[in-house]
Amino acid sequence: MAERFLRRAAPCRIVRKLCAKAVLEHGLIEKGDRILVACSGGKDSTVLAWALATLKQELRLPYELAALHISTDFCACCKKGVLAARLAEWGIPFNDIDVPVIGRLKPGRRMNCYWCSTQRRTELLRYAIAGGFNKIALGHHLDDIIETFFMNLLGKGELRAMPLLLRYQKYPVTLIRPLGGIEERQIISCADELDILKAACTCPFGLRSKRRVIRERIASLTGGSGAEKRRILRALGSGERNLLEE
Amino acid sequence: MAERFLRRAAPCRIVRKLCAKAVLEHGLIEKGDRILVACSGGKDSTVLAWALATLKQELRLPYELAALHISTDFCACCKKGVLAARLAEWGIPFNDIDVPVIGRLKPGRRMNCYWCSTQRRTELLRYAIAGGFNKIALGHHLDDIIETFFMNLLGKGELRAMPLLLRYQKYPVTLIRPLGGIEERQIISCADELDILKAACTCPFGLRSKRRVIRERIASLTGGSGAEKRRILRALGSGERNLLEE
Repeated sequence: MAERFLRRAAPCRIVRKLCAKAVLEHGLIEKGDRILVACSGGKDSTVLAWALATLKQELRLPYELAALHISTDFCACCKKGVLAARLAEWGIPFNDIDVPVIGRLKPGRRMNCYWCSTQRRTELLRYAIAGGFNKIALGHHLDDIIETFFMNLLGKGELRAMPLLLRYQKYPVTLIRPLGGIEERQIISCADELDILKAACTCPFGLRSKRRVIRERIASLTGGSGAEKRRILRALGSGERNLLEE
Repeated sequence: MAERFLRRAAPCRIVRKLCAKAVLEHGLIEKGDRILVACSGGKDSTVLAWALATLKQELRLPYELAALHISTDFCACCKKGVLAARLAEWGIPFNDIDVPVIGRLKPGRRMNCYWCSTQRRTELLRYAIAGGFNKIALGHHLDDIIETFFMNLLGKGELRAMPLLLRYQKYPVTLIRPLGGIEERQIISCADELDILKAACTCPFGLRSKRRVIRERIASLTGGSGAEKRRILRALGSGERNLLEE
């Protein structure tokens, strides 16, 4: 896509276009898919729900959408009502379940991001499988993907990315990340245009410090250039082994 | 290898150990190899010649070494006599050929690093094949490898490294880079210990600006951490597709 378009177009149009590009290039959505959108109430997953609802008409791909919010015992989205109203407006059925993330901790263990995400991922999979959904859509964006790549590269010494398409071997479900080609700043602008930014919920644990450090270091590597970030994504998806599809 | 050892040991011992590690881990040298060391007269390839001559005794691998210097019409190593004397001291036969890099330019074309390296590589291959050498050893170090990886990643959008072992499909020769796991600063310290730093030749074109820029950006990404650089190297050599052996 021309860089010129990216600079000029309205934020939501950019998000829609880039989302469609990822969906088509990586075959994220197929005819007849039943997609469960994991909606935390945050800006990313809310924009994802909007984008998938909009694309449904544009792409002329018959697929079904539903959204699930997981409330935890340390962070129930304070503006769940607003989220539910938005999703209804976009024609997306919404459900909400409670997962006692802290309550499930073994004695002596402290709450951490890894534990929380594992608990929520397990419940998400369980809900999706029980409800007959064959795909789960997550709101990770380009910056998340690049951060994870560099955390694996520099921290673990592994060449591994967060894939845009992940087929589980053990479960009849596939994970998709349709916002994977979109920068966070573009998603923020779109959320602002949709007027959902103010009502967006954020985790009280905030940015994990490791991720914040790597984010700053990546900024100094790429100088914040969107073109360079997209080249990194292209690199991850090219070559003999495609790190974006597993 | 323990980080502690790397901090304490004498520079040349570190270089010898890390060179042996790369040779053994990646199978760079086999019994009976006839290895041609490309000696520019610079610090890297001179240290490489020294390391391979030293390892020959240590590894108990019977292999043969010879060195080739290519003089060009814009940069004939000013201290070739010193280089020849060093190599003789280490028991490495030495030869020197002339390649008119600028003289071969088509009219109107300007001299550049890519042209020069292509011309020299061609002559190196020709000389090696004619002389019955089955391996060519190049002096690229860890920082060179990481810089090339990031130039490919950020500039070209490709996930590609400079391999430690490159088997040519078209020629009966294999390229090896035994210093690939060693940081430049470690090579400089070793060159200093060997007292070859002062007589080392450097290309008058100096550091290409693109490489200089990426070098600074990588420094701000890794904070200059040697451990992180080695983790990047490990990542490049791991996974289903080993980017360090082709």
